[in-house]
Amino acid sequence: MKIALDMMGGDFAPAEAALGVKKFLTEATTADLEIIGLGDKDKLTEAFHPFNQPLPPGLRMVHCTETIQYTEHPVKALKAKPDSEIAKGFALLASGEADAFISAGNTGAMMVGSMFYLKLSPGILRPTIATIIPRSNSKTGLLLDVGINSDCKPENLDQFATMGTVYARELLSIQNPTVGLLNIGEEEGKGNLLAQAAYPLLKQNPFIQFRGNVEGRDLLTDSVDVVVCDGFTGNVLLKLMESLYPVTRQQGISHSYFDRFHFEQYGGTPVLGIEKPVIVGHGVSGAEAFYNMIVLAEKMIRRDFIGKLAADFVQ
Amino acid sequence: MKIALDMMGGDFAPAEAALGVKKFLTEATTADLEIIGLGDKDKLTEAFHPFNQPLPPGLRMVHCTETIQYTEHPVKALKAKPDSEIAKGFALLASGEADAFISAGNTGAMMVGSMFYLKLSPGILRPTIATIIPRSNSKTGLLLDVGINSDCKPENLDQFATMGTVYARELLSIQNPTVGLLNIGEEEGKGNLLAQAAYPLLKQNPFIQFRGNVEGRDLLTDSVDVVVCDGFTGNVLLKLMESLYPVTRQQGISHSYFDRFHFEQYGGTPVLGIEKPVIVGHGVSGAEAFYNMIVLAEKMIRRDFIGKLAADFVQ
Repeated sequence: MKIALDMMGGDFAPAEAALGVKKFLTEATTADLEIIGLGDKDKLTEAFHPFNQPLPPGLRMVHCTETIQYTEHPVKALKAKPDSEIAKGFALLASGEADAFISAGNTGAMMVGSMFYLKLSPGILRPTIATIIPRSNSKTGLLLDVGINSDCKPENLDQFATMGTVYARELLSIQNPTVGLLNIGEEEGKGNLLAQAAYPLLKQNPFIQFRGNVEGRDLLTDSVDVVVCDGFTGNVLLKLMESLYPVTRQQGISHSYFDRFHFEQYGGTPVLGIEKPVIVGHGVSGAEAFYNMIVLAEKMIRRDFIGKLAADFVQ
Repeated sequence: MKIALDMMGGDFAPAEAALGVKKFLTEATTADLEIIGLGDKDKLTEAFHPFNQPLPPGLRMVHCTETIQYTEHPVKALKAKPDSEIAKGFALLASGEADAFISAGNTGAMMVGSMFYLKLSPGILRPTIATIIPRSNSKTGLLLDVGINSDCKPENLDQFATMGTVYARELLSIQNPTVGLLNIGEEEGKGNLLAQAAYPLLKQNPFIQFRGNVEGRDLLTDSVDVVVCDGFTGNVLLKLMESLYPVTRQQGISHSYFDRFHFEQYGGTPVLGIEKPVIVGHGVSGAEAFYNMIVLAEKMIRRDFIGKLAADFVQ
């Protein structure tokens, strides 16, 4: 099993990525694992050097001469920098030389790369990306789409519901996840045209446990496990929730509940609906986040997450 | 000046409404003010009785034999109950017997009534409703639309920006309010089709100080004064923000910052874009909220808010 990791993505690259890799390889219980570390070979060697020991076994470095920066235009950058970590990572994944690819670099480039280098899973209309929601009852909810699809068709929301269900069940260990449609009222028939048209599709979807509409007030409370919405609404909500951690800190409020809104700690989130495992990390990922992303990638491969998700679409 | 008030709307009707009226009339400095209290005459008399004194001068009661409940369908209820407080209040306003109308009752019925009994201000395509956003820098922001217009055209967002600017300046005393377009990226050209099309309109709007796109993370922080979005996104955000007060309380967090998310305290919000002052209150309004709503109605009348708003649309 080979997991490709962009060592140069993220604000603290490559030092934190190196620490995450080191931790993972030290704890790894099986010998069939290889981390393919993508980046400038000299910088990577330097990053691993502080441990005063040879490169960890299980690590293979792939030298890259360029890096896509955060500020770069995703499409242009991917074309202009074929020797960047992100372009090379996707190439390894597409050719089968890697089984998963992880990066905390330019998110747009990761999205474009997912659609550029890889195929969609059969039957999938649009890929999607989800965020975890820290619930006030200490459970974890899931919200999707959070930004790839700013304009959606009802069929997209229906597929997000299925993909979110498989994600919650296989990767978050939520048994029999329930699904709600984000809306501005409880009853069927409420909402904008999109929500009105999506409701009957969700009701008939045999792969999900649909519980009807949920409202903004239900997001943080004891509600359904998976909430679906268009990527515009989802992205605005995600960024508002992400702001709660720094805002409360600024107000002098330090509380374990708001610590859970410190999204960087979670590691990354998989791109759902594509044929191979891709994980996108937060720009400010630390060692723990990199470690968690590698663990998630391993889980996706071992549990055949892609196959299980595809099973709900190919009939 | 005559302000009509639905005394039977709200969870604590008519007791809290009576306390609010009493406080207002006690403090009122001018004699030209009359509160028209709408409701069951016996219940109203009882509600004012605990003060052991005659009805406050300046109060006139208008007996209503029916009340529209929260659970009722707005359109059906308004037709079926012409002798309800909401139907009668709008009738008084439409005929000129009242100068403003306030209710904390069925919000849907208040919206339908605003469009049913009253005309839109000249040039206005759709009425709108806003919410206050407590900023972490102790300032106050404004977000609109928050629920009347779940599907919007770019022209609607442009008009919301103008109306929000007049509201912020005239009623919230924000000098030279700045405006932002809620979006999922900072640069022009980002976002869903609606946001992409609204941006150039906002840029050319001579009545606002447009500052470009704002994101979900900017809502609670030091950002523009007025944020515009479609009513679906706005309503979901409003309800999420409203949930922060009970959620933090439940977590044992008591902090002055989150006290400001206790939206009931603010009183009500004006319906913007209609020809007369209408204020919609929160269902759980207490005496202070009713008092604040009457103060707001008086301010809207004295400052000719409707006329000032209309001035930006009639050219």
